[in-house]
Amino acid sequence: MIKPHGSDQLQPLFVYDVAEHRALTHKAESLPSMLLSSAAAANAVMLGSGYFNPLTGYMNLADALSTAEHMKTTSGLFWPVPVVNLTKDISAIKGHKQIALRDPNVEGNPVLAVMDVAAIEEASEEQMRLMTEKVYRTTDPEHPGVAAFNSAGRYLVSGPIKVLSFSYFQTEFPDTFRTAVEIRNEIAERGWKKVVAFQTRNPMHRAHEELCHMAMERLGADGLVIHMLLGQLKKGDIPAPVRDACIRKMVELYFKPNSAMVTGYGFDMLYAGPREAVLHAVFRQNMGATHFIIGRDHAGVGDYYGPFDAQAIFDDVPKGALLIETFMADNTAWSKKLGRVVMMREAPGHTKEDFITLSGTKVREMLGRGEAPPPEFSRPEVAKILSDYYQSLDKA
Amino acid sequence: MIKPHGSDQLQPLFVYDVAEHRALTHKAESLPSMLLSSAAAANAVMLGSGYFNPLTGYMNLADALSTAEHMKTTSGLFWPVPVVNLTKDISAIKGHKQIALRDPNVEGNPVLAVMDVAAIEEASEEQMRLMTEKVYRTTDPEHPGVAAFNSAGRYLVSGPIKVLSFSYFQTEFPDTFRTAVEIRNEIAERGWKKVVAFQTRNPMHRAHEELCHMAMERLGADGLVIHMLLGQLKKGDIPAPVRDACIRKMVELYFKPNSAMVTGYGFDMLYAGPREAVLHAVFRQNMGATHFIIGRDHAGVGDYYGPFDAQAIFDDVPKGALLIETFMADNTAWSKKLGRVVMMREAPGHTKEDFITLSGTKVREMLGRGEAPPPEFSRPEVAKILSDYYQSLDKA
Repeated sequence: MIKPHGSDQLQPLFVYDVAEHRALTHKAESLPSMLLSSAAAANAVMLGSGYFNPLTGYMNLADALSTAEHMKTTSGLFWPVPVVNLTKDISAIKGHKQIALRDPNVEGNPVLAVMDVAAIEEASEEQMRLMTEKVYRTTDPEHPGVAAFNSAGRYLVSGPIKVLSFSYFQTEFPDTFRTAVEIRNEIAERGWKKVVAFQTRNPMHRAHEELCHMAMERLGADGLVIHMLLGQLKKGDIPAPVRDACIRKMVELYFKPNSAMVTGYGFDMLYAGPREAVLHAVFRQNMGATHFIIGRDHAGVGDYYGPFDAQAIFDDVPKGALLIETFMADNTAWSKKLGRVVMMREAPGHTKEDFITLSGTKVREMLGRGEAPPPEFSRPEVAKILSDYYQSLDKA
Repeated sequence: MIKPHGSDQLQPLFVYDVAEHRALTHKAESLPSMLLSSAAAANAVMLGSGYFNPLTGYMNLADALSTAEHMKTTSGLFWPVPVVNLTKDISAIKGHKQIALRDPNVEGNPVLAVMDVAAIEEASEEQMRLMTEKVYRTTDPEHPGVAAFNSAGRYLVSGPIKVLSFSYFQTEFPDTFRTAVEIRNEIAERGWKKVVAFQTRNPMHRAHEELCHMAMERLGADGLVIHMLLGQLKKGDIPAPVRDACIRKMVELYFKPNSAMVTGYGFDMLYAGPREAVLHAVFRQNMGATHFIIGRDHAGVGDYYGPFDAQAIFDDVPKGALLIETFMADNTAWSKKLGRVVMMREAPGHTKEDFITLSGTKVREMLGRGEAPPPEFSRPEVAKILSDYYQSLDKA
């Protein structure tokens, strides 16, 4: 099986020993505590679940600057983005060696992790700007990732952590959330050798389905891990149970037995485009995937990144830094000329009109009226689930 | 796929809609609340995760008596044990229509479920004795299940519930805990048609491994779900991470690809022997298994039940009440005469001395000294994991 990033064995920071877990949970109640930012909480979940192997906690200023500038820590570990715990207010924790990190996203703010504080450092405005510029390729405060990064504060509270829960990701998405440990275990049980990972936040239409088939076929892969980003809904998002039902129906009907698994992970999306694509590759290696599909404008937002920037950045990844390989994809769509789904860049002599493409708005409108999009665009069984959902909205 | 018990679709009582989940969690904080017994909390987890389909909550007195006496509810649903919420103190909830049920097993007693109270009834001592006698076949207060059942109180607080968490089972065993929904999903993904479930609380030695192989082979099954009871440790128990590592190593080395999955569920064992064996079958059907292995003294304790009582009780299950089928097993062991593991009742002309059997105490002693049990008893790779654990105990 493919090795995790940076170590021979996966070293998740979750406390698996039940007695230690209970003792630490109890102890944490009386420790000085800080309320994490949502981004820092998401980092703790990724650290706890093994996805951010081999990191042992939040980075200090030197490592944060080094990863932002050079995609590696001061000790030389390849890592594409700072994994930091930023805050404005350190009054409650200053001078303390061990602190509890509280979860901003769960009622009552329970303890998410316990940290041995190694340093509390203040990043200068110049350093914040540098990190922002390097990671997001913009300092535009309208960029949602930039906004989140720069609103959390300038103090970096760093040090190793022990993780006690997977926040609301595990408790609100109990059937879909998976740790990297679980996915590795299941890949081993299923006997897969070549494993493609596919990132999604949405139900999968036929183009996405065929992209996965295409990747598996060309790579000779025996398994596909559909890996959904779980998190809080944004306006217009499909609720998780509806999305999951769509994807599971697609797998049931259009994938061979033992060729696909439907899973999810918990993270606050950075919208950092290229740098986030590299991070995506790192944590897919940690969960045991050997290949990762990177599409057009992967992890991007608005017009901040060029359509293939998130693919081009892999030219800057030093040889051998990652074991996982990428599958660079273009958009896929049904070609009326060829009568099948093709990768658009591989369709010679095609113009826009030769493809069946529909805007998200158009599809939502059709589904809301109970009309099925054409079968070349949506599998009818998947469209049915979405249509039922949109029609229930109209009635509500 | 095999249907769940009593309904066409699985109807887990967990609140999957994230917005509703958050709203109910918030609302629950201001509801009158009761602290559940550990047994009632375990019932909520089983109801939430779909294992107790199609029950909609805790039984009232009439249903509890009916299931205890006749293995069916007053409406005729086959069910082998009362699923009740017993308490001594109803002062805080009396007269309230909606209450929060708090978790006794998690720090801070967070809300586990919200209940619409249908009835609060007091069972008489005679009724408690009747239920105890029917379910446990004894009223001996030394019996751990009897003791738990009779110490919780005589008030039955009944009604439908909405479940908000899977208690410590999910949070402390994140890589192993599975809902019935998850297991059904995974069976579908793997493409299994005939699925054997195996109940265990312990690491699996070679006898258990070969029993599973035997069941699969004779039934022509394509999948095995190893389904571990998760819960609080009793003195001498192997910690969950060690047990899991043993079982996963066994699967990795001695099971074909895509033929076994390692999972767990959260429940407080009843030690009710025969009746619990029937309950085990019901919830394995709910998770999608078509066959369930029932061994000697299944779910028993001490000398309360005869070695095959938990098999004989299935003669009393009305025809058609369960869709899952049983695989009735005897103990298995290595036969020196035949040079392989056999089911002991199928070894003609054998005496005790013809088998390689070791007591638990003996095995622990050997492992503690760093000695490997004979390979006919333990797979060396599994013995190594256990031996490392016992030796770490000695050093501690």
